[in-house]
Amino acid sequence: MPYCKICGSGTVVVYLPYAKMSLCQNCFLEFYVKRVKKTVEEYKMFREDDVVGVAVSGGKDSSALLHSLRKAFPKLELKALHINLGIPEYSEHCESKVKLLAKSLDTELITYDIRERLGFTVEDFMETRFRRKICSICGTIKRHIFEEMALEAKVRVLATGHNLDDMVSVMLNTFFNGHWSQLIRIKPILPPLADGMAYKVKPLIRSLEKENLLYCMYSEVPIRSLGCPHSNQTGIRKYMQLLEKLSEEDPGFKYIILNRFLELIPIIENAVPKPTLTQCKVCGFPSTNEICSYCKRTSLVKQKEDNY
Amino acid sequence: MPYCKICGSGTVVVYLPYAKMSLCQNCFLEFYVKRVKKTVEEYKMFREDDVVGVAVSGGKDSSALLHSLRKAFPKLELKALHINLGIPEYSEHCESKVKLLAKSLDTELITYDIRERLGFTVEDFMETRFRRKICSICGTIKRHIFEEMALEAKVRVLATGHNLDDMVSVMLNTFFNGHWSQLIRIKPILPPLADGMAYKVKPLIRSLEKENLLYCMYSEVPIRSLGCPHSNQTGIRKYMQLLEKLSEEDPGFKYIILNRFLELIPIIENAVPKPTLTQCKVCGFPSTNEICSYCKRTSLVKQKEDNY
Repeated sequence: MPYCKICGSGTVVVYLPYAKMSLCQNCFLEFYVKRVKKTVEEYKMFREDDVVGVAVSGGKDSSALLHSLRKAFPKLELKALHINLGIPEYSEHCESKVKLLAKSLDTELITYDIRERLGFTVEDFMETRFRRKICSICGTIKRHIFEEMALEAKVRVLATGHNLDDMVSVMLNTFFNGHWSQLIRIKPILPPLADGMAYKVKPLIRSLEKENLLYCMYSEVPIRSLGCPHSNQTGIRKYMQLLEKLSEEDPGFKYIILNRFLELIPIIENAVPKPTLTQCKVCGFPSTNEICSYCKRTSLVKQKEDNY
Repeated sequence: MPYCKICGSGTVVVYLPYAKMSLCQNCFLEFYVKRVKKTVEEYKMFREDDVVGVAVSGGKDSSALLHSLRKAFPKLELKALHINLGIPEYSEHCESKVKLLAKSLDTELITYDIRERLGFTVEDFMETRFRRKICSICGTIKRHIFEEMALEAKVRVLATGHNLDDMVSVMLNTFFNGHWSQLIRIKPILPPLADGMAYKVKPLIRSLEKENLLYCMYSEVPIRSLGCPHSNQTGIRKYMQLLEKLSEEDPGFKYIILNRFLELIPIIENAVPKPTLTQCKVCGFPSTNEICSYCKRTSLVKQKEDNY
């Protein structure tokens, strides 16, 4: 019978193979929150007197992020930022969970309904040539809108729930594809693209996907546990499987990969020329092209709208 | 029934999935030799009027290297360099194969018998604390002796039979272990460590292990096909398996990894401080320490010898 490595109690609920630790529910939650706090402090993501926006989707990762930041930094001014993507059933369900969570934490919630604000939804891309790239389109849209929301909400820092599995598989995918200029954007803390915009931080880079789910479960964080109906990350999934396989042999493998890339990225950053940023002619946001990819992509569904 | 992609004959012997090519025996051998030639030329490894030493063990890789270099560069002055490591049965068998090959190619063969020249064998390390690291010790010894042999034989260039599988698994292993200064030594062409020493080149970096074996088989190259009795590459094997798995999905995966690292290495090379080389106090060879690892390691078995 295993005992909790920290308090010695017999009611163990989780085993962390990379640390060879069995933990009870309370000690796991404390361990998890402490790690989030340490990560924030290590990378100087923000101070306790900052205003931090948290991008919350209603899923396990971002919900665990909002909840654990509240626990780790009780005095921090947090604003939960949520986008309603207009995906039938999914988006309403996600929003309802985010509302419950924000209420339970007594945290301000700002919701951006893209149907109301922009007159289209992510769903509309299913009728365009981007049907099979909808995850990538959705990512572009969310990144852009969260920048907008961060500006409107006047937060200095925008935190996102990228977990260790996400980080490492995206790092490997970007590396193996030789996308050096994309690789250098995968950092725990990214400075603002332009004056007045927010820093972007990832306090969960050391938290496993599975641990985020367990954290939500044991903290009774309301979440949508079923993924998006359009989700289909073929390229990334290959590396996910691979990482699981290698982690069976070496439970610390994902941490090793993360640390290697965190060493490598500054080296590449110095060697790769920085992309010249200009202002998007449509939205005015920083962009490497005349028209940013957000405006390019959304013009497709906006035009469609006009033809009705 | 597949036909040879190059000549159209119906007697196909090999399928190269990364190139989607079925080939007959003659076209495969020609394809193989052309690729070796192209690799030598691409990295400017040597010119046809050079004197090139080829480190030949008697195994498939280095034997395919010697044979294919002879075919690719008929006028090149080649010297086959062989080390007899003194491993019972294995070493005599390897030497006999190398002799046959050199004779069949009408190539000068220089053999260095470490028992005769140094008074110990690689086998002797089985009785030291390096028993479990014998592959690493053997690598150190071979690297040092080949440098010595290259000097004695007055070759400008020393070619070794590292294949694509070797390259890529060592690259991944070195990368994941964060050994940046070792990673930058894994290049197709390495300049001499000191004046008068040889360039080191790897003409088989684009040839798969399996293709080297097929090349030997179809060219009737005499080889020792059974590995060394002490061989045990635990760390590397993990990446070998991984690479096989990923290559099943994407047959060009090993080439992709090779190309990524060939892009990355110069970047890291610029960022990592070059190790300061000094002269080993015992042998006088370039070394990062007062006494080089070859002299450190071999002093163990030399001392043992003196105690007899």
